[in-house]
Amino acid sequence: MDISYRIKGFQASPIRRLSPYAIQAKKRGIKVYHLNIGQPDIKTPVQALDAVRNYPHDIIAYGESDGDIELREAMCKYYHSFGVDIKSSDVLITNGGSEALLFTFMTLCDPGDEVIVPEPYYTNVHSFARMANVNIVPVTSLLERNFALPPLKEIEEKITSKTRAILLCSPNNPTGHIYSPQELEIILDMCVRKDIFLVVDEVYREFCYDGKKFTSALTYTDYSDRIIVVDSFSKRFSMCGARVGALISKNRDVIRETLKLSQARLCPPAIEQTAALAAFNAPDQYIKDVISEYETRRNTLVKALRAIPGVKCSSPNGAFYLVAKLPVEDAEDFSIFMLRDFNLNGETVMLAPAEGFYETKDLGRNQVRIAYVLNPSDLEKACRCLKAGLKAYREKIGFVLE
Amino acid sequence: MDISYRIKGFQASPIRRLSPYAIQAKKRGIKVYHLNIGQPDIKTPVQALDAVRNYPHDIIAYGESDGDIELREAMCKYYHSFGVDIKSSDVLITNGGSEALLFTFMTLCDPGDEVIVPEPYYTNVHSFARMANVNIVPVTSLLERNFALPPLKEIEEKITSKTRAILLCSPNNPTGHIYSPQELEIILDMCVRKDIFLVVDEVYREFCYDGKKFTSALTYTDYSDRIIVVDSFSKRFSMCGARVGALISKNRDVIRETLKLSQARLCPPAIEQTAALAAFNAPDQYIKDVISEYETRRNTLVKALRAIPGVKCSSPNGAFYLVAKLPVEDAEDFSIFMLRDFNLNGETVMLAPAEGFYETKDLGRNQVRIAYVLNPSDLEKACRCLKAGLKAYREKIGFVLE
Repeated sequence: MDISYRIKGFQASPIRRLSPYAIQAKKRGIKVYHLNIGQPDIKTPVQALDAVRNYPHDIIAYGESDGDIELREAMCKYYHSFGVDIKSSDVLITNGGSEALLFTFMTLCDPGDEVIVPEPYYTNVHSFARMANVNIVPVTSLLERNFALPPLKEIEEKITSKTRAILLCSPNNPTGHIYSPQELEIILDMCVRKDIFLVVDEVYREFCYDGKKFTSALTYTDYSDRIIVVDSFSKRFSMCGARVGALISKNRDVIRETLKLSQARLCPPAIEQTAALAAFNAPDQYIKDVISEYETRRNTLVKALRAIPGVKCSSPNGAFYLVAKLPVEDAEDFSIFMLRDFNLNGETVMLAPAEGFYETKDLGRNQVRIAYVLNPSDLEKACRCLKAGLKAYREKIGFVLE
Repeated sequence: MDISYRIKGFQASPIRRLSPYAIQAKKRGIKVYHLNIGQPDIKTPVQALDAVRNYPHDIIAYGESDGDIELREAMCKYYHSFGVDIKSSDVLITNGGSEALLFTFMTLCDPGDEVIVPEPYYTNVHSFARMANVNIVPVTSLLERNFALPPLKEIEEKITSKTRAILLCSPNNPTGHIYSPQELEIILDMCVRKDIFLVVDEVYREFCYDGKKFTSALTYTDYSDRIIVVDSFSKRFSMCGARVGALISKNRDVIRETLKLSQARLCPPAIEQTAALAAFNAPDQYIKDVISEYETRRNTLVKALRAIPGVKCSSPNGAFYLVAKLPVEDAEDFSIFMLRDFNLNGETVMLAPAEGFYETKDLGRNQVRIAYVLNPSDLEKACRCLKAGLKAYREKIGFVLE
């Protein structure tokens, strides 16, 4: 009575896999700084919370399968604000960006089909692909090149008769890279030549630093027939638990067929759509303050990491993650050490080993993803733990810094 | 640039497919009684709504992937109340019963595997199976036999090396049949002999009439290793829009592997889990009143239907649906006629043609599913429309009643 091979190969999420060690550390009275997860400490807009607290209905009834029309119309207005012209019929509200990614794989691909993804990439994409029996074909982006788009030649070499799409995440989780208009144009041109779709996960759209301007793939209207954008309210409005996202496309076939998937599961969550709609009433200053806060955190983190001997990190411009190379051979072993065997004055850090963000075997073994969702003071303390921990770990295992 | 064949074969849901005709009828000022959908008019428990209105957090944060521990523990207490001993680690909270069904297919089956389902069956099961590239193998249950379990021999003949499970829904949507302890024992014995799983969708568990007692599959502890139960808060607490359900199993492999699917999509909706937890605080009288109301509606509907010449319906004991045979050749054509061409003093009915609830081609063509989610007075008015509509339709097309 075996279960399916479909999920047997699933690794537990690298973001949460070490949680049992963190729980043990906390039981021993140790304070753990969570650099592993993307749960912001930023408050949800009060407008969203007020909408929940004033929920007007006495029956929590089914909504429409494609999402509440008021919410879809508000999405259109929001997209217009950054120069993208969409209609409510281009929008399907989903159970978070997660469901939008899963539906995208199911709509575009049959079992055995392939989707190209620059690695390192958001680890749960691997899970959604497996759920749909789709194969992820990686192209490697390099820390030394700031995780920019790999050379076009390398990407084109990966395209086969089974390739259905290339999936980007911009601003990128886990690397913080923002794909430039030039990079998008190169990719879109390739998508036309090779007749494949471009899927862009834009859930970190707002989180751009250093004056960088974000360009949505949907800006390229000449290509809109082969673009799917994945969106979410989770990060923009710090409402990760609300599970409201969206799949957006000007391609009528994609929307019509994906709607059948939406109809099967009836509707997205009703109350939380109410919260999402109200979140749009937050003043512009809300998101400006949030971005400013994250930029400060990014600066604090990058400076503190680069002050640690042997640590290398890229210069991330967006999202709230970065990938750092540590002076160790096995970042997972080191991350376990930090939770199980180490503390600095009763404090330690939890990291997300980056190997699980790569598809290619053995890549990223000495890398970690760090989420900068803590306040600057805690980030500095976490980096002090990391520095002391690296020293203790290398002394323990006799690793010599080059 | 084709989309996948995976969803090309999807039919639009038979429950909602005729909606455009209903919208047109309403535009012409006609009142439409919705017998097609399972959206109850019963109020959500005030305890659940109060919990929403007192949502205490200022960040709507990610929860645990397997669901809030308080909610899982409350589920255990609820299961104990009807004699089933489960632990919180046997429970995965899902995005409605829908996600529990989808995850079940993904966990048990690889693409091309088969699941046996008595037909007519809940139509979205077909969609979830296709999403996982699983084939539904039907065994036909008959109106004349009150939609009881088909003979064991017929079921066993369908089992191949690719069969992974048999899926029952009890009390049944769309037939209203409650599988008896004898039927469950026959099936469980077969599952052991053939080494397959039993999946039971028990979301209508509370809705048993005529003094019938519901028996959960999990009562059979000797077999618990091969049982998965699908549950939901939608119907029990009339909170369909809240998208909170559960997958329950004593099989550790099933829970461990399905948890990986849960982790990929991060967590179920946070606020609505709060509502679900509080719903358990509704007094026993809440559900007693609801059941009593539905029993009255069932009685009203069955009596009114049987008074219509040529209409046959089973004697449903549970859920809030029944399947009726109409004196027409094509129930879909008739249902469209009712919305497009007919009204009785400005009123008409919307039905769900039953053909879409059958896997076998051409079965159920003269049947409809009727949901009795309207109050008795409206049900009587709806049946008057149906009676007059049948007469008008037969006169129009010259169909002679046998």
